[in-house]
Amino acid sequence: MPIELPILVHNPHLDGLKDDVLYHFSLGTETHDLPAMFGDVKFVCVGGSPWRMKSFIEYIASVLGMEDPKAEYPNICAGTDRYAMYKIGPVLSVSHGMGIPSISIMLHELIKLLHHARCTDVTIFRIGTSGGIGLEPGTVVVTKQSVDANFLPKFEQVILGKTVMRNTDLDPGLAQELLECSKELNQFDTQLGNTMCTMDFYEGQARLDGAFCSYTEEDKQEYLHNAQKAGVCNIEMESSVFAAMCKMSGLRAAVVCVTFLDRLKGDQLTSSHDILNNYQQRPQILVGHYIKKHLTHKKDS
Amino acid sequence: MPIELPILVHNPHLDGLKDDVLYHFSLGTETHDLPAMFGDVKFVCVGGSPWRMKSFIEYIASVLGMEDPKAEYPNICAGTDRYAMYKIGPVLSVSHGMGIPSISIMLHELIKLLHHARCTDVTIFRIGTSGGIGLEPGTVVVTKQSVDANFLPKFEQVILGKTVMRNTDLDPGLAQELLECSKELNQFDTQLGNTMCTMDFYEGQARLDGAFCSYTEEDKQEYLHNAQKAGVCNIEMESSVFAAMCKMSGLRAAVVCVTFLDRLKGDQLTSSHDILNNYQQRPQILVGHYIKKHLTHKKDS
Repeated sequence: MPIELPILVHNPHLDGLKDDVLYHFSLGTETHDLPAMFGDVKFVCVGGSPWRMKSFIEYIASVLGMEDPKAEYPNICAGTDRYAMYKIGPVLSVSHGMGIPSISIMLHELIKLLHHARCTDVTIFRIGTSGGIGLEPGTVVVTKQSVDANFLPKFEQVILGKTVMRNTDLDPGLAQELLECSKELNQFDTQLGNTMCTMDFYEGQARLDGAFCSYTEEDKQEYLHNAQKAGVCNIEMESSVFAAMCKMSGLRAAVVCVTFLDRLKGDQLTSSHDILNNYQQRPQILVGHYIKKHLTHKKDS
Repeated sequence: MPIELPILVHNPHLDGLKDDVLYHFSLGTETHDLPAMFGDVKFVCVGGSPWRMKSFIEYIASVLGMEDPKAEYPNICAGTDRYAMYKIGPVLSVSHGMGIPSISIMLHELIKLLHHARCTDVTIFRIGTSGGIGLEPGTVVVTKQSVDANFLPKFEQVILGKTVMRNTDLDPGLAQELLECSKELNQFDTQLGNTMCTMDFYEGQARLDGAFCSYTEEDKQEYLHNAQKAGVCNIEMESSVFAAMCKMSGLRAAVVCVTFLDRLKGDQLTSSHDILNNYQQRPQILVGHYIKKHLTHKKDS
């Protein structure tokens, strides 16, 4: 029997807490039976938008043949408006808002939740949207390395006023498996590449259409071409801390983002709602295929 | 007649845009008549939680005697789940999610919205929740200066991979007026002090209850006491970029946050829902009093 991999918290103080209140989930160890609620979780999928994470759980239910036409998928975090959470069978779907601080709060509480629930062998995916560099809009990017605004693979965590560097490696085997899944699906183009993670959507991503812009179109093009030379395929705002925190806690992790536009050609999201909606479904189709394949394989073996 | 102060964008590229899509609001200059929808706005109130910002507009409607028992307050950004926006008369209420990147996206689009709507003389408030240092829970803090994790009054904006320092000054006159309002109300204690703005809720704020913690209770106490010596009264996650962007765009700005707990005594939010809900209303009561006073004064003069 293979060894079961636990979720690692690195905090000796947690043992001394009688009740651990997961405040931004409106859950807690004294108020909820976390092992009963979440002990069977093997796949977690996170994304910025609460609507998208609800649609993901409905999609996964149909893919796994677990849907009940009469079923509602209740928001497990209904007591708060900070995050939304849905579950079906071994799959958990959680929203994280926009930006590193927002996903970081969610991941702290999610890692503690999985730890308290005594989950093992959990794989986690971030499904998101991004700006592409030199890619046809609609292309899906599986992240090789998450890099910062200077194209370096690191995340800077400030602790007690001091900056600590954290590694942003993702699971290379999982990334390869996702590329295989895309070939099997043969519905859209999927590439492996670096993902730049920024602190800001406008000035931080060299957009010309924010409230403030102190650089020229030429400056923007030079910056984005330098990013491209460093292997950056797309730009989003959460992957670095996601990679760092998942690695520290022993979660097998992948980042799967669709590109909404080619940033070398523009900044504004002017595609129709229907087109963007179609693009947005691609990461969930890819991850859904992966989960189905693994659950079927497990049943067979 | 006094000079009317416009909202300043600093971006020559905006003039060349035929349509400016405010993507995260699901609004745009071609699809919406922004001057007709927002031209009369004089007060903007922003806060993290969409529920709180809806409750603020209901509260303000009753304070200003503008409520209609049959009225619903529709979410102006109903086409997206990124932010929620409500309006009554000259007051706009907008949610911003958690953390600097999330509020920064919202502020870029809000500043462009106010600019396109040709608004003048706008005052903006952030109403929020925070952790206090050495204050009785429930105390309201009006921010003097927003400081970083090393207690310095600056915000670091990364542009094309380079770090630019921005000033985090807030309007001192507005802060004083809010302290006066609190005296008039005489319902809760309000203090003027520095606010530390962090990138993270757990390790970034020296909490002992995150998924990861590499320091001791003594390290935490030393850090928070050093913050206290530097004039820090409370800790939150949005004030620095809020101060910087409002200053750049000519918005009179104030940060008004209630403290949920005294961080010198603990980390977890264990107070009852009712108590936290009561605390949470205090910033909106203070800002509501200020807005009513100014609108009444304008009517009289």
